[in-house]
Amino acid sequence: MTSRLEILGAIYNGIPKDAGITRIEFEGPEIAVYVKNPNFLTNGGDIIKKIAKEIKKRIVVKADKSVRKDEKEAIEIIKNIVPKEAEITDIKFDEDLGEVLIKAKKPGLVIGKGGLIQQRIFLETFWKPEIIREPPIKSKTIENVITHIYNETEYRAKILKTFGDRIHREVLFKDRYVRITALGAFQEIGRSAILVETPESRVLLDTGVNPSVNFGERMFPKLDIDQLRLEDLDAVVITHAHLDHCGMVPYLFKYGYEGPVYTTPPTRDVMALMQLDLLDVAEKDGRPLPYSAKEVRKELLHTITLDYEEVTDIAPDIRLTFYNAGHILGSAMVHLHIGEGTHNIVYTGDFKYAKTRLLDRATSEFPKVDTLIMETTYGAQEQTSREESEKQLIDIINNTINRGGKVLIPVLAVGRGQEMMLVINNALKNKLIPEVPVYVTGLFDEVTAIHTAYPEWLSREVRDAILYKDENPFVSDQFKRIEGYREDIAQGEPSIILATSGMLNGGPAVEFFKAMAPDPKNSIVFVSYQAEGTLGRKVRDGAKEVQIIGRDGRVENIQINMEVKVVDGFSGHSDRRQLLKFLHDLTPKPKNIILDHGEYNSMMAFKRLIDNPKEKERLGIKGANIYTPAILDSLRVV
Amino acid sequence: MTSRLEILGAIYNGIPKDAGITRIEFEGPEIAVYVKNPNFLTNGGDIIKKIAKEIKKRIVVKADKSVRKDEKEAIEIIKNIVPKEAEITDIKFDEDLGEVLIKAKKPGLVIGKGGLIQQRIFLETFWKPEIIREPPIKSKTIENVITHIYNETEYRAKILKTFGDRIHREVLFKDRYVRITALGAFQEIGRSAILVETPESRVLLDTGVNPSVNFGERMFPKLDIDQLRLEDLDAVVITHAHLDHCGMVPYLFKYGYEGPVYTTPPTRDVMALMQLDLLDVAEKDGRPLPYSAKEVRKELLHTITLDYEEVTDIAPDIRLTFYNAGHILGSAMVHLHIGEGTHNIVYTGDFKYAKTRLLDRATSEFPKVDTLIMETTYGAQEQTSREESEKQLIDIINNTINRGGKVLIPVLAVGRGQEMMLVINNALKNKLIPEVPVYVTGLFDEVTAIHTAYPEWLSREVRDAILYKDENPFVSDQFKRIEGYREDIAQGEPSIILATSGMLNGGPAVEFFKAMAPDPKNSIVFVSYQAEGTLGRKVRDGAKEVQIIGRDGRVENIQINMEVKVVDGFSGHSDRRQLLKFLHDLTPKPKNIILDHGEYNSMMAFKRLIDNPKEKERLGIKGANIYTPAILDSLRVV
Repeated sequence: MTSRLEILGAIYNGIPKDAGITRIEFEGPEIAVYVKNPNFLTNGGDIIKKIAKEIKKRIVVKADKSVRKDEKEAIEIIKNIVPKEAEITDIKFDEDLGEVLIKAKKPGLVIGKGGLIQQRIFLETFWKPEIIREPPIKSKTIENVITHIYNETEYRAKILKTFGDRIHREVLFKDRYVRITALGAFQEIGRSAILVETPESRVLLDTGVNPSVNFGERMFPKLDIDQLRLEDLDAVVITHAHLDHCGMVPYLFKYGYEGPVYTTPPTRDVMALMQLDLLDVAEKDGRPLPYSAKEVRKELLHTITLDYEEVTDIAPDIRLTFYNAGHILGSAMVHLHIGEGTHNIVYTGDFKYAKTRLLDRATSEFPKVDTLIMETTYGAQEQTSREESEKQLIDIINNTINRGGKVLIPVLAVGRGQEMMLVINNALKNKLIPEVPVYVTGLFDEVTAIHTAYPEWLSREVRDAILYKDENPFVSDQFKRIEGYREDIAQGEPSIILATSGMLNGGPAVEFFKAMAPDPKNSIVFVSYQAEGTLGRKVRDGAKEVQIIGRDGRVENIQINMEVKVVDGFSGHSDRRQLLKFLHDLTPKPKNIILDHGEYNSMMAFKRLIDNPKEKERLGIKGANIYTPAILDSLRVV
Repeated sequence: MTSRLEILGAIYNGIPKDAGITRIEFEGPEIAVYVKNPNFLTNGGDIIKKIAKEIKKRIVVKADKSVRKDEKEAIEIIKNIVPKEAEITDIKFDEDLGEVLIKAKKPGLVIGKGGLIQQRIFLETFWKPEIIREPPIKSKTIENVITHIYNETEYRAKILKTFGDRIHREVLFKDRYVRITALGAFQEIGRSAILVETPESRVLLDTGVNPSVNFGERMFPKLDIDQLRLEDLDAVVITHAHLDHCGMVPYLFKYGYEGPVYTTPPTRDVMALMQLDLLDVAEKDGRPLPYSAKEVRKELLHTITLDYEEVTDIAPDIRLTFYNAGHILGSAMVHLHIGEGTHNIVYTGDFKYAKTRLLDRATSEFPKVDTLIMETTYGAQEQTSREESEKQLIDIINNTINRGGKVLIPVLAVGRGQEMMLVINNALKNKLIPEVPVYVTGLFDEVTAIHTAYPEWLSREVRDAILYKDENPFVSDQFKRIEGYREDIAQGEPSIILATSGMLNGGPAVEFFKAMAPDPKNSIVFVSYQAEGTLGRKVRDGAKEVQIIGRDGRVENIQINMEVKVVDGFSGHSDRRQLLKFLHDLTPKPKNIILDHGEYNSMMAFKRLIDNPKEKERLGIKGANIYTPAILDSLRVV
């Protein structure tokens, strides 16, 4: 790795003297060069690119505080430069980092062709512009996140410098090893957490809760072992916003972690929303979590967002790159490049190796792969094709509505909900189902709003429709947003109800289920994974009667007469064929394959499937070792 | 486990009021009850046994300081009580622990039949007697160890209390797991170290150096990982005094460890001797070790010695018991009983599952075994039988002496050296070889002296000869002890030379080898394992010429014309047949078998040998998992 001295040398020598460098700061993974005269950038952008390439670092040029325009003046300049059609809705200044946040309905117009308008803003105001989208559906989450971060610019500037100094510390150890330790979601699903250790650094990949367990040690990953000192962790990397991957991140901050959380911008927002919701539910259920909203706020200040394929130093010997995982909005596969070619790890997180309406197919090409850590949720199952699944869903909806019933689709707030909206919107558009109201309730409104803020992260079709045709499927009139449970709807006219939670372990979906279950005219359709121990799993598995403990503590017996259907082709997870295809397509091929995130039997079935000479030959992984570690096993991979 | 409160309650309620308890101290693993009037013991020993059994703790009754006789008076009383024939050579007092050390040539006579004299000493002086043997060959090591410990009684009393408080702390965690982490001597030989972790405690089994590596990270086990916080370790357990099992113990004290070291009494003494010798050699070779004699002295004060089959609490949830390993003097197998029946680990250390002249065969019966960690040094090799080996050695000696040559037998200072003395002594006694001088040099004198202090730890035959027939083979006139190397002997009349080191990587053996190698009349006989990378290995493998770097830094070319012989049946390690026989005899049978302490190929060969249905069936280990972890792998066994 390039040493601190080499970095500083390359910058001082590479940038023209008349730029007037006043200081160079390691701000998180970026190197910020503060100058008195940024005009050398006008035709000098190449200089920065050249230096960045040479030292393999991300460099941003910022203007020294003394030369920046006064805020009012800057606002005037911005409003003059940016075309009206951009519809700027907010401008915020970060004095500590020299940045100006511009929120606009059409952020593309603030950036301009080739980033020219963005550059003009910088060169005329000397504030570095950060441009974000004002979503068509107002998102309280995003507003709160941004307000919170811009209220704490001093703190954030300070910790970014701390992170930067830590990332760029000198490499001390000559010894080389890479250890991977299973902390959660091995031989099981839920409470994902993996520790990657080198002599130099420690990185935690995901930190989830087990959604099917309400209390006790099996709810959380094994974070309380000697091997894991929260205060010594270099980085926490979060693949996506489902709580089984991010639900314990605030806990880390409660118990001593002071470092950065790396994730994508959509994941940051959805993650915070999900955690606050979890806190809320937990409190209502009288089973408090080991953290509070205070730690969620701290987590937000400590989060560094990265786009897909943006290579970033996160420790003196580790570079992180996110790749599209195709699972939910902002979901990422993690690539860790360790040492100078010592070892390369790909952790898939949850991934879909097939196109969905909402998202593009996950990546299967990486610069290097030595060890692959791969989810196997559906390692033993084949899903129905998407076409067939959509047909099945449409048939169920038509049958149910024709007999005067209502269709309840319990959905995960994030991902499957929006996917169902796209499927149903398409069916309505093409008149494949009658024009009944489609109620969405639970966390939907908010999560869908966040989706509308990040169209660039959605599938090519949806992205193009939103950005170029101004057709936003999420704001279609067909969707009726409601608050929580509504008795009149549960007992009312034929309709479709999309409600959280997806496994019937809370939220309005349970209330609708209780009201709708006894009526044989109604249907419930499971479109996502049902974890062991959840009500959803029991119902899916054919229970004729279930006991549900209400909020008031009383046990209710619910007769299940409604039609229970499973449509399994909408999963955000790869099925067995897709997992195999991913392995087949994967370039380059790994030496070690570690299976995680699968119930014991299905994971072992998948292991047997691939761990034989013939299949290995076919998949091109002939020499690879295949591991299925237990929680608290450590594997030294190099 | 019994709680502190329960322990105190049982003692206060169980001991008669008139005993006058003044305080109860947790002194290391023992509970010391200080009383004003210990006379209740006269016919009250059963009371203590009953309480000890009830609370499963070791209890010792001591007299309160105020009632103990003055030292001079106590000496008089002791001399009056103990028969002259016991030949007391030293009496030392430990005011802080209320103990009196009595050193005698015939310690049995100080103990008396059924311990009666020992009890009389206590009841008449109110000092608790500790009785040790004055060896027939004076041992400087033992004298120094004892003097050192009795000079630091205040420190020792203080740390024993610290240990005791730590051992008897309350159990905090409800969670249960047992993790075994490979730190050294996995898929290799040398630098043995294993970490055993529970939610509550951490125990380090062995902490050795790699004798075939002179520097760099491969010399030491992986002690610098996050998982191992030296200051949080509960116990270090040492199986035997070979440096590849104990050579890094002082390092622990240099870098933060403040806890106890558990081992057998002979191992304590030999270990200190070996470590000091290693420091000496390392210094002379200009490759300093990461510790000094200061840490060896600290280690001695922190050592708690245990006899075979003495069950001892070493952590709130772990009980340790040593069993005979048959490898060298004092060598032990380790049994860890974890939790209330949660898990039982047997770590064999180095072991000989066959009788030798020096030692009895290793144990194969344990109260419980769930996980077996087993050495496989000779997992791929069968040794010549002992009878045949003795015959071979006698033939080599006779042939060499008949042609006017000398026999060089490089021996490990500990174990093989004394075994060879017994074999040669027997051959001389039975006139199987001519009466030539037998020179012993190197660490011999001292290590042999230590053997003579611990006859109870030797084989039944040797023990009986020494204790009941007064025939001590080690003090036979045939053995000429010399200091280091002697040119006149190397160039002199036919003789047998037993010299350290056993692998020709230092010591007078190398000097004798250099002088004797060019003469084809001479012989060298390898009777022990030759590690990869050592000079011994090269010579054994048939090198015709070797380069040796002398102390002065010059490289000498040594022509090897002497006869090179290997007699492999004297090994202190089990050969393949003995390893299999051990597994076959082992009671009860383990669920997990972890192989360690073997070079990669031989370990894998042994794994293949046993890891098949037929052999598993024959060995009675049908359901067992067999693991061959790499260094830094962790296995969760429960």
